[in-house]
Amino acid sequence: MHKQISSTSNSLIKELVQLKDKSRLRKKTNSFLIEGAREISLAVLGNYEIKTLLVDFSIFNKIAFNNLVETIKTNIDIIEISNDVYQKIAMRTTTEGIVAVAKSKDLSLSNIKFKNSNPLILVAEAPEKPGNIGALLRTVDAAGIDAVFIANPKTDMYNPNIIRSSVGCLFTTNIATGSTSEIIKFLKDKNIEMYGAALTASVEYQTINFTNPSAIIVGTEATGLTDEWLNNTTQNIIIPMRGAIDSMNVSVSAAIILFEAVRQRLA
Amino acid sequence: MHKQISSTSNSLIKELVQLKDKSRLRKKTNSFLIEGAREISLAVLGNYEIKTLLVDFSIFNKIAFNNLVETIKTNIDIIEISNDVYQKIAMRTTTEGIVAVAKSKDLSLSNIKFKNSNPLILVAEAPEKPGNIGALLRTVDAAGIDAVFIANPKTDMYNPNIIRSSVGCLFTTNIATGSTSEIIKFLKDKNIEMYGAALTASVEYQTINFTNPSAIIVGTEATGLTDEWLNNTTQNIIIPMRGAIDSMNVSVSAAIILFEAVRQRLA
Repeated sequence: MHKQISSTSNSLIKELVQLKDKSRLRKKTNSFLIEGAREISLAVLGNYEIKTLLVDFSIFNKIAFNNLVETIKTNIDIIEISNDVYQKIAMRTTTEGIVAVAKSKDLSLSNIKFKNSNPLILVAEAPEKPGNIGALLRTVDAAGIDAVFIANPKTDMYNPNIIRSSVGCLFTTNIATGSTSEIIKFLKDKNIEMYGAALTASVEYQTINFTNPSAIIVGTEATGLTDEWLNNTTQNIIIPMRGAIDSMNVSVSAAIILFEAVRQRLA
Repeated sequence: MHKQISSTSNSLIKELVQLKDKSRLRKKTNSFLIEGAREISLAVLGNYEIKTLLVDFSIFNKIAFNNLVETIKTNIDIIEISNDVYQKIAMRTTTEGIVAVAKSKDLSLSNIKFKNSNPLILVAEAPEKPGNIGALLRTVDAAGIDAVFIANPKTDMYNPNIIRSSVGCLFTTNIATGSTSEIIKFLKDKNIEMYGAALTASVEYQTINFTNPSAIIVGTEATGLTDEWLNNTTQNIIIPMRGAIDSMNVSVSAAIILFEAVRQRLA
């Protein structure tokens, strides 16, 4: 018999609502919420420690639930919750019926390990919205590159909107956060070439040889990269804009450059 | 002295609200609304006929307005509107203060003219949301390709959400709509190779020679291309997915393939 909670004023439920909404509490407790079976599965695949599963059996299938539980090798608490409780802890539009509490990882640069000696890395400086980070993580997962660094992030990476817009790719990506200075130092120390997407002093991206250890650095759609980046790059690069407008969505730009780099490395 | 309207129950204003919301009325009257100075400017650049400008001077700058009017060479009606009226005809989140009524173009395939004898075309079949079409149009504008065809569209192209998400690229793109059968016939008649993005019977996109007359065809994120397309393509192509997930946003996929085709044509 699992534990059951049907009251939205239960103290654990109140804490989980806070965990969903408050970055500070996530940092303090080293824990965060994951909503959705697919996202929870990808977290298990990415070696995240699941501590608790909360399930609303009025929505979520019992067989699917047992299958999911079997993939989790560590001890977990299972709590059956009422639909009222589920609606309280879930994001607004969801009808998944399952939420996990997981342990955060330390996303420091010092924990980054590369699978090979010739890494390809994406750096995104201060992405404006959680949705932008999620879209970048999808691209990074698809391109199969070695790591993504978020410089001067405006939110912690366990923001529920990042998890959701990344469709769980947050968990399968080799990811680190740090200040712009820390990331520049890290890349210089490892002799990784830095190519900054910029409008000034730039060459067309497809003329670059990306087969050496390389980092591609993208800024925000509105203001681009900071001077600290622009002054430290090996070379600034540009995607030529052949039409009437002068900017692309940051995840589209990153995809174009990353897939060109991957293409060169496979050619 | 311009005409002035300050009543939200004015019959013209009521008609414009309908024009914003109802595809059928846009088709019947061959007219549609454009919101925002930048979007109106791009429509002028794309040779759209502006019939009326409605301006709320409590928001929009008079000097900027006069500059905008000077770019319009045809006779237009200018109507000063109150902020109440503006809020009524504008989309919810905007604070632009300016709306135009413009004449639709006939977007039939038979009106498509190519600038050169070796066109590169994007075809998108039944995109799920207006926002997807807008994002595709931004990519098409940036890549500078020859045309985009929307097959079996679920909305008319003058839907305000398409205009907005395309940031006005709807007006600067060589665009046509038609049924899947019509577009296949058009491409076959012109001996344009058809490369369909698909998961089955596909080769990796970067192995294709895109330097001949080529159309790249993308389906929906959820279900991909219909059999009618898959049975008629020259070759199906795939972007290899190297991570944990199996699909990308359609505008990201289209950008990766289109920019590879452009790269080959410039190499």
